[in-house]
Amino acid sequence: MSHQSQCRPLSTHPFDDDKLHEECGVFGIYGTEDAAAHSVLGLHALQHRGQEAAGITAFDGKQFVTQRQLGLVADNFTSEKLIGTLKGDAAIGHVRYSTAGGSSIRNVQPLFADLATGGFAVSHNGNLTNAWHLRRQLVKHGSIFQSTSDSEVIIHLVATSGCHTLLDKLIDALHKIEGAYSLVTLTREGLMGVRDPLGVRPLVLGKLGDAYILCSETCALDILGARYERDVEPGEIVIINNNAGVPTIRSIKPFEQCNPRPCIFEHVYFARPDSLVDGLSVYDVRKRIGAELAREAAVDADVVIPVPDSGVPGAIGYAAESGIPFELGIIRNHYVGRTFIEPSDQIRHLGVRLKHNANRWQIDGKRIILVDDSIVRGTTSLKIVDMMRQAGAREVHMRIASPPTRHSCFYGVDTPERSKLLAARMDIDEMCRYIHADSLAFVSIDGLYRACQQENGRQMDRPSYCDACFTGDYPTHLTDQDQEPDLKQRAEITALN
Amino acid sequence: MSHQSQCRPLSTHPFDDDKLHEECGVFGIYGTEDAAAHSVLGLHALQHRGQEAAGITAFDGKQFVTQRQLGLVADNFTSEKLIGTLKGDAAIGHVRYSTAGGSSIRNVQPLFADLATGGFAVSHNGNLTNAWHLRRQLVKHGSIFQSTSDSEVIIHLVATSGCHTLLDKLIDALHKIEGAYSLVTLTREGLMGVRDPLGVRPLVLGKLGDAYILCSETCALDILGARYERDVEPGEIVIINNNAGVPTIRSIKPFEQCNPRPCIFEHVYFARPDSLVDGLSVYDVRKRIGAELAREAAVDADVVIPVPDSGVPGAIGYAAESGIPFELGIIRNHYVGRTFIEPSDQIRHLGVRLKHNANRWQIDGKRIILVDDSIVRGTTSLKIVDMMRQAGAREVHMRIASPPTRHSCFYGVDTPERSKLLAARMDIDEMCRYIHADSLAFVSIDGLYRACQQENGRQMDRPSYCDACFTGDYPTHLTDQDQEPDLKQRAEITALN
Amino acid sequence: MSHQSQCRPLSTHPFDDDKLHEECGVFGIYGTEDAAAHSVLGLHALQHRGQEAAGITAFDGKQFVTQRQLGLVADNFTSEKLIGTLKGDAAIGHVRYSTAGGSSIRNVQPLFADLATGGFAVSHNGNLTNAWHLRRQLVKHGSIFQSTSDSEVIIHLVATSGCHTLLDKLIDALHKIEGAYSLVTLTREGLMGVRDPLGVRPLVLGKLGDAYILCSETCALDILGARYERDVEPGEIVIINNNAGVPTIRSIKPFEQCNPRPCIFEHVYFARPDSLVDGLSVYDVRKRIGAELAREAAVDADVVIPVPDSGVPGAIGYAAESGIPFELGIIRNHYVGRTFIEPSDQIRHLGVRLKHNANRWQIDGKRIILVDDSIVRGTTSLKIVDMMRQAGAREVHMRIASPPTRHSCFYGVDTPERSKLLAARMDIDEMCRYIHADSLAFVSIDGLYRACQQENGRQMDRPSYCDACFTGDYPTHLTDQDQEPDLKQRAEITALN
Amino acid sequence: MSHQSQCRPLSTHPFDDDKLHEECGVFGIYGTEDAAAHSVLGLHALQHRGQEAAGITAFDGKQFVTQRQLGLVADNFTSEKLIGTLKGDAAIGHVRYSTAGGSSIRNVQPLFADLATGGFAVSHNGNLTNAWHLRRQLVKHGSIFQSTSDSEVIIHLVATSGCHTLLDKLIDALHKIEGAYSLVTLTREGLMGVRDPLGVRPLVLGKLGDAYILCSETCALDILGARYERDVEPGEIVIINNNAGVPTIRSIKPFEQCNPRPCIFEHVYFARPDSLVDGLSVYDVRKRIGAELAREAAVDADVVIPVPDSGVPGAIGYAAESGIPFELGIIRNHYVGRTFIEPSDQIRHLGVRLKHNANRWQIDGKRIILVDDSIVRGTTSLKIVDMMRQAGAREVHMRIASPPTRHSCFYGVDTPERSKLLAARMDIDEMCRYIHADSLAFVSIDGLYRACQQENGRQMDRPSYCDACFTGDYPTHLTDQDQEPDLKQRAEITALN
Repeated sequence: MSHQSQCRPLSTHPFDDDKLHEECGVFGIYGTEDAAAHSVLGLHALQHRGQEAAGITAFDGKQFVTQRQLGLVADNFTSEKLIGTLKGDAAIGHVRYSTAGGSSIRNVQPLFADLATGGFAVSHNGNLTNAWHLRRQLVKHGSIFQSTSDSEVIIHLVATSGCHTLLDKLIDALHKIEGAYSLVTLTREGLMGVRDPLGVRPLVLGKLGDAYILCSETCALDILGARYERDVEPGEIVIINNNAGVPTIRSIKPFEQCNPRPCIFEHVYFARPDSLVDGLSVYDVRKRIGAELAREAAVDADVVIPVPDSGVPGAIGYAAESGIPFELGIIRNHYVGRTFIEPSDQIRHLGVRLKHNANRWQIDGKRIILVDDSIVRGTTSLKIVDMMRQAGAREVHMRIASPPTRHSCFYGVDTPERSKLLAARMDIDEMCRYIHADSLAFVSIDGLYRACQQENGRQMDRPSYCDACFTGDYPTHLTDQDQEPDLKQRAEITALN
Repeated sequence: MSHQSQCRPLSTHPFDDDKLHEECGVFGIYGTEDAAAHSVLGLHALQHRGQEAAGITAFDGKQFVTQRQLGLVADNFTSEKLIGTLKGDAAIGHVRYSTAGGSSIRNVQPLFADLATGGFAVSHNGNLTNAWHLRRQLVKHGSIFQSTSDSEVIIHLVATSGCHTLLDKLIDALHKIEGAYSLVTLTREGLMGVRDPLGVRPLVLGKLGDAYILCSETCALDILGARYERDVEPGEIVIINNNAGVPTIRSIKPFEQCNPRPCIFEHVYFARPDSLVDGLSVYDVRKRIGAELAREAAVDADVVIPVPDSGVPGAIGYAAESGIPFELGIIRNHYVGRTFIEPSDQIRHLGVRLKHNANRWQIDGKRIILVDDSIVRGTTSLKIVDMMRQAGAREVHMRIASPPTRHSCFYGVDTPERSKLLAARMDIDEMCRYIHADSLAFVSIDGLYRACQQENGRQMDRPSYCDACFTGDYPTHLTDQDQEPDLKQRAEITALN
Repeated sequence: MSHQSQCRPLSTHPFDDDKLHEECGVFGIYGTEDAAAHSVLGLHALQHRGQEAAGITAFDGKQFVTQRQLGLVADNFTSEKLIGTLKGDAAIGHVRYSTAGGSSIRNVQPLFADLATGGFAVSHNGNLTNAWHLRRQLVKHGSIFQSTSDSEVIIHLVATSGCHTLLDKLIDALHKIEGAYSLVTLTREGLMGVRDPLGVRPLVLGKLGDAYILCSETCALDILGARYERDVEPGEIVIINNNAGVPTIRSIKPFEQCNPRPCIFEHVYFARPDSLVDGLSVYDVRKRIGAELAREAAVDADVVIPVPDSGVPGAIGYAAESGIPFELGIIRNHYVGRTFIEPSDQIRHLGVRLKHNANRWQIDGKRIILVDDSIVRGTTSLKIVDMMRQAGAREVHMRIASPPTRHSCFYGVDTPERSKLLAARMDIDEMCRYIHADSLAFVSIDGLYRACQQENGRQMDRPSYCDACFTGDYPTHLTDQDQEPDLKQRAEITALN
Repeated sequence: MSHQSQCRPLSTHPFDDDKLHEECGVFGIYGTEDAAAHSVLGLHALQHRGQEAAGITAFDGKQFVTQRQLGLVADNFTSEKLIGTLKGDAAIGHVRYSTAGGSSIRNVQPLFADLATGGFAVSHNGNLTNAWHLRRQLVKHGSIFQSTSDSEVIIHLVATSGCHTLLDKLIDALHKIEGAYSLVTLTREGLMGVRDPLGVRPLVLGKLGDAYILCSETCALDILGARYERDVEPGEIVIINNNAGVPTIRSIKPFEQCNPRPCIFEHVYFARPDSLVDGLSVYDVRKRIGAELAREAAVDADVVIPVPDSGVPGAIGYAAESGIPFELGIIRNHYVGRTFIEPSDQIRHLGVRLKHNANRWQIDGKRIILVDDSIVRGTTSLKIVDMMRQAGAREVHMRIASPPTRHSCFYGVDTPERSKLLAARMDIDEMCRYIHADSLAFVSIDGLYRACQQENGRQMDRPSYCDACFTGDYPTHLTDQDQEPDLKQRAEITALN
């Protein structure tokens, strides 16, 4: 189990609260002036992958400079003064979801170490499944950990490796770690991108003029006007450095075997709808899931209403396939502060209305189909169904554009404990009653795969995904879960700032 | 011309920047515990009517306490500590759009005066057209103004009236002022709501248990679970006070003549889509405008794409009427900080992409119809059309769900000077070329009225609206414009905080 | 009674807490570039007269700009950006002691009004004794008060005066007010200084090149390298304006009769020791009080120890006269934050040691004479005597360089209610026992006058002072005390920010 | 050369700017409830040893919690909330002088490591002279440094030691380091205090009930009402832990040879006058230096004036010995903000007056003797002499209560480069002319030793001090100066926050 699970986000909103959360986004750029300013934009485009903290490390040929900030990129990384400290034509960055209360800027990435081979910065998206096991060995050797982040294990493994070059040290380290990782690293020599042999978390390669970009999603290329080149492959190390003044790229595959199992939840919820993931338009996949759902779980109704914003593409797909009109029946209040504190006790129960309001004139007296992307704890679904009924809905049919989420993720997603997952505790009928719906249906696992299996109307081979959150089929060892279940409590430091 | 026109909002976003802005929302509640906490929620629901500052005055039977804050309600009005200072079962509040830079918390409403008849607090939505003329007279009499707000004229007219009761003083004052005003006032005796004889700005009445609520839009009732009773009528004063422990209401109509001319732009853009304005569902009106537009300005295309978020209902209406599929072709980044500072010079031209991204996989190679609610300066339309072309759009047809905006508003809307209004400078062909579109069409003024003229499918009589921004037909004198064009520069104070 | 007495200072320190506090310092300058920057320095030198808030109004020939800040001048008035908003060659400023918690920037001076004769700014040091009486009349007339400050009465009296020129309006207003006031005003025409007919609060005139300066104490001239010209006389109006490009000065005496009664407590505690007040060096007066005390209340002892910092000159005078060595027996911690919050309950009793420590190696086993300037509540004297005993003092003799403080001040000093003044509740023997001293003596009222009666060794005529805090002999009517004791509670506004 | 020398303090004041600065104070307590709250008070009393940052680590039997803050203890360590996170009956703390601008909370101590033997926290006062040499070796071994602080070397040496117990690891580390260090450490087992074999920096032991305290100066005991027990001896390790519920102490002396050389500048300037250092009252030593100076460098004059505050005891001693009256001729403005920003260019030359003012009525026409503790760059002395002349002084004789400061310190004091030390560039006549004095004299090195050689009037043997700043006689190797002069530039990280 990931040690971060004890962290609480700085702020949670009525609805986001009840979602799974991707924990990180990574970005790197090499070969352009103002590399840090480009990184700011790239990280801003990846902000949906982590809102609690961000960091950038830049290298100007002489010195590595790192800025880490709690809060949003757009709020904290745009002053000329701060950007002015991040000089150079190479930089990497990171956004992260979970950083506990005041604790701690130390966990904010990129991580940096001043190694015998020179400076080494790394941004990590994913989660290692044997981090605590390795940490115990490293501490015995004399390594001092500054954070409780599993990512720090990687950098200590590199530092203490007996190999001579940084690349060899890194490959040595990669062979020791298990789990999910998409890494972007920065050294004196250049930029590297690494994706674990399963390719659980995404990592794409782009170009902007001569410069190379590595990032979690294509939307970070779009914001820069950069060109999408290709996905970094599972188990691949991409090395970008300077060759006679021009950024050049080469590829290494240090693992004997790679069985691609990218995360299917990127399509369901994590990725932005305007991104291309595993070569597929996320928006199109979501519309197709909605259409699958309309075919698998049709119901007679007056309107199809999305739970905004993540349910919108699925609802459009459902409406088009079913012929039932699509309407905005829930209006989002865009001014919900990121720091919203709920008001006094007497009116606390009104919580859900702070962020959304029923568009009652579209609902009153109607039979409605609500489309949402997933159900996690179920608390939000319950509130929305009730809000629809208070607005006069005659029938409320809930349709979910993913299979039931029944298992925890150990690969970099902030999942509640299994006991809090509604689908781990109830069957679908019980869930339906729990959320007060007239009917409830999830897309089937096959329907989900079908929606991911098509591009430009063309059917493709059934791809291989990590779908452990739906099926419990974990593609790696879970060493820390098995061997060191309480080791994480050994870490005695709590540095509050 | 309104003196506020020189004020600059604290922050502007790439798109909002190029919209007209409603300047205020008002709220009042009488007869419930925690009146201030209810006001916080009500103002939060009205936040779209003014984001720059908010204030609440509460009365606990002994003392009036006022809290004013720059920034969003959800960010600044939710600490238990602050709410704890606002005791009592009666309160009024205000959100406002424009408060110049550091200047000044003094302009933030509610205004308050300690009159000979006792405390008097007032929230004002609208703009007076003879404020500077009256101010000159009041200063001669010895009145000291603390702000440059036209609203302060009202309170000085009340203070210096020769009448004896507060109600008579208020009526005396109302007969002197010209322009648009929806007022909510709070005194020792109770709550009052006032709407000018034209009813330019909206004001609705609701009930929550025994308590009465006055507010700008019905969405502020919904958030509290309150019931919509009726609109306050043009020229009506609604008086709510305590009768044997129960809040009671009475109505006065002090004006001889009232010719209702409510603002039609509330339907086009200002009001929230889930509000009922003048008895009409705003969402439905906008969909019908979209449908009118589809009939008036049909074009052969592959997809209908809304400019988010205000163009969405119009686009749904257009798509339904035309049979062309509705798709989300522009994805909004929800994490654009309200305090976003643009990055360094080199990448400043990327500005528009900070907030929106083309969903290129829906656009590439297609003929698209873009639906937006209005064109003000045209700068944003240009950027969006260009963004669509860069994403591969084959043709871009712009359709606008309102007539061309050709005239300034003097009734409480922050309009740019006429010379900056694109439609005041160019005909439609020139505008089309300016924004790089393949075609451009606006709904006709008749089409707009038709969309406002129907409810539940039933055609009604043509209503009477203030449509001066489209037609130049101003329904009041513009005294300050005619007589005191430079008077506002006489105000010598600039209190920076 | 002053309405400010209900205000609590933002921060109090163990010792300062138990002092009387001057409530304000004023400053004005006319005829130099960077008038505001000079005002910042002048106010900084006057900071001991008021630490809680400061303000500056500058006039650049076109516009009046005011900046008001809570907190210290040196913390809040030194950014180039803020100073850059205060343009022009004329400015006035103000520091004030008491501004309640968050309430309110509105009470911070200078006050400003946009009168029919043009802009009018005023800084006031002192307190009016008929402010509430006048306020009631003004409110009836329709004046709207923005603060609960008595100073605002002055500006409304000016605004509503039937006279035609500003000067006549001001004189008209002065004839209506009672109490203590040293005013500095700024208008389009120039700078004025006004001192009430008794001259209770100080006001001096200085020159810096051609420019004129008006300020509360000469230390504000020293910081600018300006020359002390003379005191503004009781009942005098000094008018400084431009005559053919050169600042010129003239004097008006609008009162028939002036009986000077300057505040004697300025010499005892308020004024800085390096200032000249009423033509006397404050440091010399305090040393002479110490010498009087040594003659009046000799005691056999080993060391004379000042209570820092205000007791130092008295202790030097006492030591020189008595021949007993002067030693620093109490060391002050200069790092006590202005925002110090006391730690948890268990160690709260250690409070006094946060700011001072006994220099025990000078005290252990010795008979000590402690010299302090005054005793207000007595709580601090008790703590210091106890601290001396814990450090091993064999005997502790307390000597106070002023007579017992037995009466409240109504002229601009923040005095506790009479019932809290130790000397109003106890005779000297009781006070001695209360503070745990071996002996206690105060200088006599005659001894105090003798110390104020001499300059350069030359005996002068006995001057006339306001010594009401010692004697109860108030030199003015106390209209509000007599007629309107509870009127101040009528003010219904509490604007928290 | 110390790598910190490139750091700039957050704020500098006109006078402090031209002083040498002690870089740190340390504190530890074991065996009392609220250990952290006690540490706050202790660190507050040591604040003069470092104003820029502070930190506390507490241990509650289960977990180590650390809080680090930039700024003063009294401003940042007194909220109940923050103190509430620091539970337990054992804690250590640290105040430090120099932390560059935004860089970095990482350098703020206590340092902490989660070692194989458990948590280990350490506070360090002093400076190692072979830190960079050792750092190079540690990095080769795979240690990752998080700061550029020399103190971090100690903790990595402990972590990588081959010994088995923490105590053996620590002793192993101590044998590798050179330079000055007084350490306080906290582990699961208890508290330790370590002083280097020369005892350059002070460390004292005290008791409060059963609890033990280790701290830099006795004033940190006084604030808690604790009893001074003894100094920790040069080369001693004091170990405090729990024995059957009672804190017990034992002592280890792991070094073969210890030649005490405590820093003599503690007496001259660093230590608080109310502290006992090396068994001597600092205030008495300073008075005796003043008396030596009066004997060595007599001059005919009217008054003796201290440069506040550090010159006061020397001036009292000088005045008493010479029979010339002691007067406060320079008045300090206590309200100089810690964040003072100098005003605009035109008046910047007035800088020195922001903090001090000549008490001109004591100076005009007189021959004055100014007494200060030391001259560093000389810029302040020049300004003060000029200020005295502008106030009318007839003659100005400068007397310095220490020998000329001619050499840099490598043991934990922030000294300017040698080339900036006035006494390293000029002889005394040149210095006298440079500061515009009529005469200038320093106490002799013998006079200084005589003043340190006496207690209670009894002459003692001449003690042995580190006086390298006066004599250049460094008592340790300066390995980094000799072997690794540019190594510190190898550190590639600049983590800005």
